[in-house]
Amino acid sequence: MGIGVFDSGIGGLTVFQALREALPATETLVYLGDTARVPYGTKSEETVIRYALEGARFLKRRGVKALVVACNTMSAVALPALQREAALPVVGVIGPGAEAACRVTRRRAIGVIGTAATVKSGAYARAIATHLPDARVVSRACPLFVPLAEEGWVDNDVARAAASAYLGDLKHEGIDTLVLGCTHYPLLERVIGEAVGPGVTLVDSARATAKVVRARLEEHGLLAAGAGPGDGDRFFVTDSSERFHEVGSRFLGGPIARLEQIDIQE
Amino acid sequence: MGIGVFDSGIGGLTVFQALREALPATETLVYLGDTARVPYGTKSEETVIRYALEGARFLKRRGVKALVVACNTMSAVALPALQREAALPVVGVIGPGAEAACRVTRRRAIGVIGTAATVKSGAYARAIATHLPDARVVSRACPLFVPLAEEGWVDNDVARAAASAYLGDLKHEGIDTLVLGCTHYPLLERVIGEAVGPGVTLVDSARATAKVVRARLEEHGLLAAGAGPGDGDRFFVTDSSERFHEVGSRFLGGPIARLEQIDIQE
Repeated sequence: MGIGVFDSGIGGLTVFQALREALPATETLVYLGDTARVPYGTKSEETVIRYALEGARFLKRRGVKALVVACNTMSAVALPALQREAALPVVGVIGPGAEAACRVTRRRAIGVIGTAATVKSGAYARAIATHLPDARVVSRACPLFVPLAEEGWVDNDVARAAASAYLGDLKHEGIDTLVLGCTHYPLLERVIGEAVGPGVTLVDSARATAKVVRARLEEHGLLAAGAGPGDGDRFFVTDSSERFHEVGSRFLGGPIARLEQIDIQE
Repeated sequence: MGIGVFDSGIGGLTVFQALREALPATETLVYLGDTARVPYGTKSEETVIRYALEGARFLKRRGVKALVVACNTMSAVALPALQREAALPVVGVIGPGAEAACRVTRRRAIGVIGTAATVKSGAYARAIATHLPDARVVSRACPLFVPLAEEGWVDNDVARAAASAYLGDLKHEGIDTLVLGCTHYPLLERVIGEAVGPGVTLVDSARATAKVVRARLEEHGLLAAGAGPGDGDRFFVTDSSERFHEVGSRFLGGPIARLEQIDIQE
């Protein structure tokens, strides 16, 4: 009985890490990265929902007691479908990220950046409105940030030119808070911060999500009790494990021990 | 009975168009773009081969008489598997592109750019060696070029910075020819040309491939005879057809008439 952490690929490891820090060592995490079909952020709502349900079914067959949707695109587009079908507590990253942004903003003017699918869904704007109905939300899709982060180009001329092209005009929008609405974006934090200027606070939803997950587990009486280590975390990917191993070890700052390639439909 | 044109997504429309120009109007083309799983170029060899075989089976069920693999990554990695399994004439883009480069080069020093998977496969270097065994081949993976082309950023600061980061040092390699080893790259022709300098001839394999396809059809007695239009070209995609319609119409300079979303495994 562990907690499923589901992502389209490798970016969700930032959420995995935040969960690892927020939860007791007795708690086991089961990570699934759909690396054979990544990215989700450029695909249609219908396809993202289909992939999300397939991943959730796989994790349920592994016996997880709760599901964390680490991917912003999936959280933005497929959360209602997952909550309907999974019959488990399901936590996405949009709600916690939006709430964190509402706590931070002073002038109630919030920027949101994410994939094309996330921005198109309007999910962040809706989630922000539940806390601050009069907040002004300015959204921008930044499709190139994911490949930049995966290329490791997070602080060079290309990254700076992309950040400036996407975000340069946000300076004149009067926002004081910017939600990094994609798990990859915190890697580009520096160039994003430069592009929007020093008066804007960047909000990453990984830590906020981990706190909500802990609270939800406690609320449902599902948090693992006792001291000492759990069963050990496990990692499943749909493409070859080689590249995940390489990049993932960089994300986590150490080797990934129990990593297995699976067929998500079996 | 048409000719299957198989691509990981939308980039293969450049090959489709070259085929349309090289083949008689009586010949029907059946295009398949695996848009629900695009891109292939960042994925493992094993996964690309699996996807390639699934696509080929789909097109065979549609009754195609020959198969054109428009995607460089698939051609680099999966051509032997396709030729073994398809029991049809199968033409990829690597062989024709390599041959064209060998005809163009004067100093027998050829650059090749492509996706990570294409470059890792070494397929272009092997194909070039069959024509010019003593040619020097310098390869570079340019993963960011595909998302740049899809974003429509083909001639701005970001594209120029990326081209310069990937290709700046190729100037000192003495190449006189550069193979654009990915269907998206011709869109970035201008910034690529600037980065490698005016002494380097750029080679795009779409037209060379179309010529080889025509020759292979004639050789097998498969070229459609008679005058007048054929059955009309058809387009199949695995993700929602909406975006393909939008971007594809831009590629082809007109609306895409017979476009259908399918499940590749059915």
